[in-house]
Amino acid sequence: MHKIDLQEKFNCFSEHWSPKIVGELNGQYIKLARFKGEFVWHQHDDEDEMFMVIGGNLTIEFRDKTVTLGKDECIIVPKGTPHKPVAEEEVLVMLFEPASTRNTGETTHALTKERLDWI
Amino acid sequence: MHKIDLQEKFNCFSEHWSPKIVGELNGQYIKLARFKGEFVWHQHDDEDEMFMVIGGNLTIEFRDKTVTLGKDECIIVPKGTPHKPVAEEEVLVMLFEPASTRNTGETTHALTKERLDWI
Repeated sequence: MHKIDLQEKFNCFSEHWSPKIVGELNGQYIKLARFKGEFVWHQHDDEDEMFMVIGGNLTIEFRDKTVTLGKDECIIVPKGTPHKPVAEEEVLVMLFEPASTRNTGETTHALTKERLDWI
Repeated sequence: MHKIDLQEKFNCFSEHWSPKIVGELNGQYIKLARFKGEFVWHQHDDEDEMFMVIGGNLTIEFRDKTVTLGKDECIIVPKGTPHKPVAEEEVLVMLFEPASTRNTGETTHALTKERLDWI
């Protein structure tokens, strides 16, 4: 049991759209990711997903609206909700979701990561 | 579905040791709390608990060590681990834990909150 310094963890990697696992609790993972550019439209049929911005600005497009999050702002995307993250400039994001969640949900894409690393 | 601005949520309450619920996903709650002073030693027999500091400094005493967390630092306290949060100055904390988690765990104390409010 030790503290997790998010900034130190972000300094361990530079790739975009490649979430890293930093903690697990109650079957949920805490993941960190750097986003830049446009991700792919996708949804998670069985899992709610939380995005929290640690640095920068994150836009999430939904079918009927667009939400932009800044530092210390979060959103919970309910299961079954199509969404597309977009980051004009690089953004540092913390994700909270079940250990089973795949980054592109039900969609398979060049950005799909079947296996995530712990850092 | 809307964004959750943590600072705005913290501005909605001022009591210490009284977590408020700001979100739910996959049976887990996102809670915000203001801590100041010493809490009570307790443990959660069946639930891991994550503390993340949003503002200030939080010390958590364990039986064998003490960990101090600053802004954007977290710790996951595994189920069954006795712990006591201490905040010399007020600290703003985000908690991730199952919806069923009681703030004082298996201990009943004047600080126990049997029912938490959503904000």
